[in-house]
Amino acid sequence: MLAVELAKRYLPALDSFMRSVVDTLPDSADFKTMLHYPLGWVNADGAPYQGSTGKRIRPILLLLCTEAVGGDWHAALPAAAAVEFLHNFSLIHDDIQDNSPTRHNRPTVWSIWGRAQAINAGDTMFALAYEALARLSATTTADIALACWTMFNRTNLELTRGQYLDMHFETQTVVTEADYISMVSGKTAALLSGSAYMGALIGTFDKVEADHFADFGLNLGIAFQIHDDILGIWGDASVTGKSTATDILSRKKSLPVLYGLANNPDMITIYKREPFGELDVIDAVAALDKIDALDYARTSESSYFERAIDAVQQSASGGSKSFNDLLALTETLFQRQY
Amino acid sequence: MLAVELAKRYLPALDSFMRSVVDTLPDSADFKTMLHYPLGWVNADGAPYQGSTGKRIRPILLLLCTEAVGGDWHAALPAAAAVEFLHNFSLIHDDIQDNSPTRHNRPTVWSIWGRAQAINAGDTMFALAYEALARLSATTTADIALACWTMFNRTNLELTRGQYLDMHFETQTVVTEADYISMVSGKTAALLSGSAYMGALIGTFDKVEADHFADFGLNLGIAFQIHDDILGIWGDASVTGKSTATDILSRKKSLPVLYGLANNPDMITIYKREPFGELDVIDAVAALDKIDALDYARTSESSYFERAIDAVQQSASGGSKSFNDLLALTETLFQRQY
Repeated sequence: MLAVELAKRYLPALDSFMRSVVDTLPDSADFKTMLHYPLGWVNADGAPYQGSTGKRIRPILLLLCTEAVGGDWHAALPAAAAVEFLHNFSLIHDDIQDNSPTRHNRPTVWSIWGRAQAINAGDTMFALAYEALARLSATTTADIALACWTMFNRTNLELTRGQYLDMHFETQTVVTEADYISMVSGKTAALLSGSAYMGALIGTFDKVEADHFADFGLNLGIAFQIHDDILGIWGDASVTGKSTATDILSRKKSLPVLYGLANNPDMITIYKREPFGELDVIDAVAALDKIDALDYARTSESSYFERAIDAVQQSASGGSKSFNDLLALTETLFQRQY
Repeated sequence: MLAVELAKRYLPALDSFMRSVVDTLPDSADFKTMLHYPLGWVNADGAPYQGSTGKRIRPILLLLCTEAVGGDWHAALPAAAAVEFLHNFSLIHDDIQDNSPTRHNRPTVWSIWGRAQAINAGDTMFALAYEALARLSATTTADIALACWTMFNRTNLELTRGQYLDMHFETQTVVTEADYISMVSGKTAALLSGSAYMGALIGTFDKVEADHFADFGLNLGIAFQIHDDILGIWGDASVTGKSTATDILSRKKSLPVLYGLANNPDMITIYKREPFGELDVIDAVAALDKIDALDYARTSESSYFERAIDAVQQSASGGSKSFNDLLALTETLFQRQY
């Protein structure tokens, strides 16, 4: 399977590079453990962790983009490490903000070390992302390193803007689909966009080529989030690992819900109920089903997915094996069932 | 007065540059207000703030270092903005971690917008610091921009390491003076060190020169923290704006306290009392006075101050008016009375 093959090709080098960056930090009590832990390298007590390190989707995508344009993926390792550190930074802070006690069946950083230390662990992970990225100056030209830096800054500002909007929307009664797409473009899609851009730029030294990949990553990210929104309501619990309709129970303003609130007045009434329990979830899903919200969301997902493919097809690098692998990997990202 | 003269020279350009960076962010409800507010530009409602924007000590020091080595301070504005954004990032997160409701008599970001949004506001400020710094590519060479980037990463990792240790020490019974200096080197001194380094590097393009300034900033920062520690116990409340001995009331492990815990067994007994109130503070200060902890701390402060001056005197740029201004500014930083 392609994803396994890519993981085998990239991940040993990626993890080794990431460790070399983290290990520049001095040993100070469990300062490093708080960073090794969320990266999936150790347990909370510092002993090696036997479970999965996570899928590392963003760095894999980035490195494959470098290959897809004919570049050497090794040169892009600093950028790949940077996006993975950044992703982990955002998870650590997200979990504090959402008060989530677990992530992938492990206690979250804040629930082990407390909120104050977890804020700082996230900040350190953020700084490590830049520390990793700056090592591009050893693997590419100064011009390309600086261009990646600029894109990474834009990515981070988009990420925090999206995070702001996501929290802000929780307090708003009216959220439009345009608001939603704007939020998702920051919170989910910006990092995929930045990953694809940097991967392609390091591989080609060509900013026009890289822009096609940025556009690819952005639309891919939006499609991916809508896919996730669908799973959060109609997903098969045995596949997703979440109980069905958890997003409805937390009254998340996902795309199908926004469509429901705009097109079925019952949905507005149901979402206002206090308290809001399992029976209300059933009513809400029925209200969404009545107006075919699932079809609507699937159509929207497909349209962003097609935009992503169209964007990357603008690249001058099409036709190679790696380019076709990129298209194939993109397809597999959407194979989680609903 | 020199500090006023420097503020007049630099701060309008600095604030204008900083605004130009923040204003690249899109308008999204009060996303920008949460950033303008801690920078002292607006009130929580977004209306212009009439009070002080804060002293901006770090960027002033940075820009003066550029001039002290014979450079044009305008070229260093991106770095000066970066250190000020970074300082504000650390304050926003500090206030959440310390649960502080006010800072300089204004409500803290978290106490207005909540902890979740304040974490994100701090993260955004962090990203803005890098966004500002990356603009060095327009004012200096790629080589110098990349060297500043590397130093800024090191600074940030030192800052988060120091912050980790500061919180960690609260839970430790034994903290040595070496531990303390290591913590302070990160939490307080790294940013001054990075500021002086970048200022000098942008002014001279000479890494050996810049290293003298890094050493200067580091020792200056440690001296400055010890000065603050002294004020936190023996400071005149009418001058410092804090009530006397607030650091004792919160049982902070500052340098004089560590000296006391190591050299007067009474101090250990007193610090273990539960509950711990105003009368215990009086006993603790008496225990410190008994072993001349104030003299000890003053001597330590002086020795770091002298190391700072010795380091900067190694520079080949001595003798100019700006260089003498730098020495004079350094002196004034220690004029807060105790």
